[in-house]
Order: sequence, then C-alpha cells, then structure tokens
Amino acid sequence: MLRLHTYFRSSAAFRVRIALHLKGLEFEAVPVHLLRGGGEQHTPDYRAKNPLGTVPTLIDNAATLTQSLAMIEYLDETHPQPPLMPADALDRARVRALAQTIACDIHPLNNLRVLNYLKDVMGADQTARDTWYRHWVENGLAGVESLLANDARTGLFCHGDAPTLADCCLLPQVFNARRLNCDLSAMPVIARIVGQCEAVAAFQRAMPGVQVDAPLDPAT
Amino acid sequence: MLRLHTYFRSSAAFRVRIALHLKGLEFEAVPVHLLRGGGEQHTPDYRAKNPLGTVPTLIDNAATLTQSLAMIEYLDETHPQPPLMPADALDRARVRALAQTIACDIHPLNNLRVLNYLKDVMGADQTARDTWYRHWVENGLAGVESLLANDARTGLFCHGDAPTLADCCLLPQVFNARRLNCDLSAMPVIARIVGQCEAVAAFQRAMPGVQVDAPLDPAT
Repeated sequence: MLRLHTYFRSSAAFRVRIALHLKGLEFEAVPVHLLRGGGEQHTPDYRAKNPLGTVPTLIDNAATLTQSLAMIEYLDETHPQPPLMPADALDRARVRALAQTIACDIHPLNNLRVLNYLKDVMGADQTARDTWYRHWVENGLAGVESLLANDARTGLFCHGDAPTLADCCLLPQVFNARRLNCDLSAMPVIARIVGQCEAVAAFQRAMPGVQVDAPLDPAT
Repeated sequence: MLRLHTYFRSSAAFRVRIALHLKGLEFEAVPVHLLRGGGEQHTPDYRAKNPLGTVPTLIDNAATLTQSLAMIEYLDETHPQPPLMPADALDRARVRALAQTIACDIHPLNNLRVLNYLKDVMGADQTARDTWYRHWVENGLAGVESLLANDARTGLFCHGDAPTLADCCLLPQVFNARRLNCDLSAMPVIARIVGQCEAVAAFQRAMPGVQVDAPLDPAT
C-alpha cells in the first residue's frame, strides 16, 4: 500500500505524483495543508514521519521515505516499468543532473518556508520577494534550457522520447514559474517539452488543480 | 582521464573529492576561483561546460557532468568498488534522502551566490546573513540528526559501517557549519559520524585546507 502525504501546490509532491501516475500505481493521497493552522507539516505527528517537516512523505507499507527524488528513484527500482531512468550510466548522470539542477539549484530558494523567512524575518516586501523568486527561477531555468538545447540526447522529452525523472521535475518547476509570471520567453526547448508533458494523462492527473485538496476556487 | 573543476571551499566539490578518493581514483584538479575576477565560474569557457556556472564540473574523457550527487552516483556505477550506495532499494532511498536533505534542503540556501544576493540586492548586513545561514543549517541538520538517531540502519557512518553518498555530503556541510559557528551541540550522532569520517584518509585528502588552490594563509 502506497500512501503519499501531499499538498496540491507543493512542487516536490507534484513530482512524485507524476511518477506514481506514470508507473500506473494506485496510492492514497493524504493532504498536508502547508498554510492552515500554522502549517500541518509542523505537527508532532507529521514530524515523526518526516523530521524536516517537508512535503511529500511516501509510505510504502512499513517504510517511510523522504525527499522526492529519492522516492522517484525508489519507485523506479521497485516498479521498473515504464522506466524513468535510462540504462546507460552517463545518461543516468544526465537525467539526475537535470533533475538536481531543478531540485537543488532552483526550487529550494523559492519554496514557502524561504519566502516566509524573507517576509517575516528579513522584512522583504512582496516586490522584493517576487524579484528574488524570478531571479532564481529565470537564471536556473536558463541553465536547464542550455543543458537541453545543446545535447543531442534531448528528444520529445528531456532525455529521449519518453518521460524520465527529469520531466517529473521540469513540469512542476515551470508550472510554478508561470504562476509567478517568470519570463520564460527565451526557453523554447523547455516550452516544447512542457507542452509534451501536459499532453500526457499521467502528468495531467498530477496537476495541482485536480488534487483532492485543491480549493474549488482557484484564486484562494 | 578524470578531471574535476573544483574550488577548495566549495561544499559540492568537497563531496565529489571525497567520493573520488574513497574510490581510489586519480583525477586532475582544475581550480575555479569563485571570488577572483568576479568569479571564474562565470567565464564563457566555464559556462560552456557548466551552463549554471556552478562548481564542480566533472570531465570523464569526452563526457561532461554537472551536479555533485549525479557525479557521485555515476562514479559509483562506473567504479563499483568500494560501493557508496547500498544494494537494497529501501536502503538506497534512505542514503539518497540523507544526501538530498543536505544537498536540496540545506546547502542551496547558504552558498556563495545566495549570500551575495542577500548582500548586494537585498542589502542584508553581515548579522542578517549570518542569522540566515545558521537558521537553515541548524534546522536542516537537526532534521538529519533525527533521521540518523531514529534509524537502526545508522552505523559507524550514516548508513552502516562504511562510508556512503550520505557521508560524502555530511562532512562538507558540517565543516561549513563549524566555520560559521553554527550550534551543533544537540547533534551527537552527527558529531560521532563526522569524527569517524575525519579519521579516514579519503576524507582527509578531500578537505578544503589541503587542496592545491587553498591559500597558504587560512585566514584569507
């Protein structure tokens, strides 16, 4: 039995939802509301599962897993079809590097806890926070665009013609970037690949707006 | 031929140096000075290898690899002995999660480009930057401590009794934390494991102070 502690808008949970749906795996989605009541991720019960208080957490029977990229590789190792990682070591390194460029270089700077710190501790106003957000997303995704555009291994998706771990990371990051009006106009390869992802049912089913915990009114 | 573009004080390069030495692999270290001349990582020549302008970059003959964790898994796949990843899928997920807690949740908030942005764009003074640094390191490492302390798979090292990818990440993060006077007093498991790492020649050879590009005067 797979259970995913998730928040509809969490980029990291979004990645794992994509992987679960690409694998065709049934899972129970347990919402963790990051804003309600000071953040449900901070409750002792949740922290016992995930000491960092981050979302998502994946439960596979008796096992508890943290970190979205580790979860996706675990799902790929335990449910190999369809593969989300290439077979060759150099190709695997490329897919991991694309995923980590998003998961290590871009996303950590823009998640809720960091934006909250900028606001509450450093007193950064909305404009300063938006500028911060766009700076890291636009610079980081420009790097991803370059890695994709200058490598013959890029196909319909980030690596070849089927989705991999890299695509599980790319769509959520671009979804967030668009929501915050980042300028992605000079990133045609990213736009093309994201369009490809958006046409796949597994990606569609993982989108924030269709999750059980998504608000009925998208403006809330 | 392995070539590592490295900076002595880069935490991510430090991780890869540890892995290379644990594997007993010869490599050429090519220093990239992150501070000199506006940052050698921003030159067109370096950006052609690594579009993000991050350190390290690993060259293996004709192949160019970015992202330290991807590099270490690549080295482990192409040079399996001694293994830096466990054989079991759940154990692999645990080691990756420990590594990613450091590489995704802690380190990205504290590297040079972020501290420079806080200073140059947001006008944060030294005290505000130090408080920021310690906040993410102390909270993040407290989570790592909890993951280590509450799991019977923790051994002499983060996972079992031999170094893994997780230890390649832990020592550099703790090294930086100590340099910035973070309070790690409530983290006895981390202290014990780091002590274990520091007694191993491969970790010693990877330390910032003994790199070719380390200044003779450690205060500089």
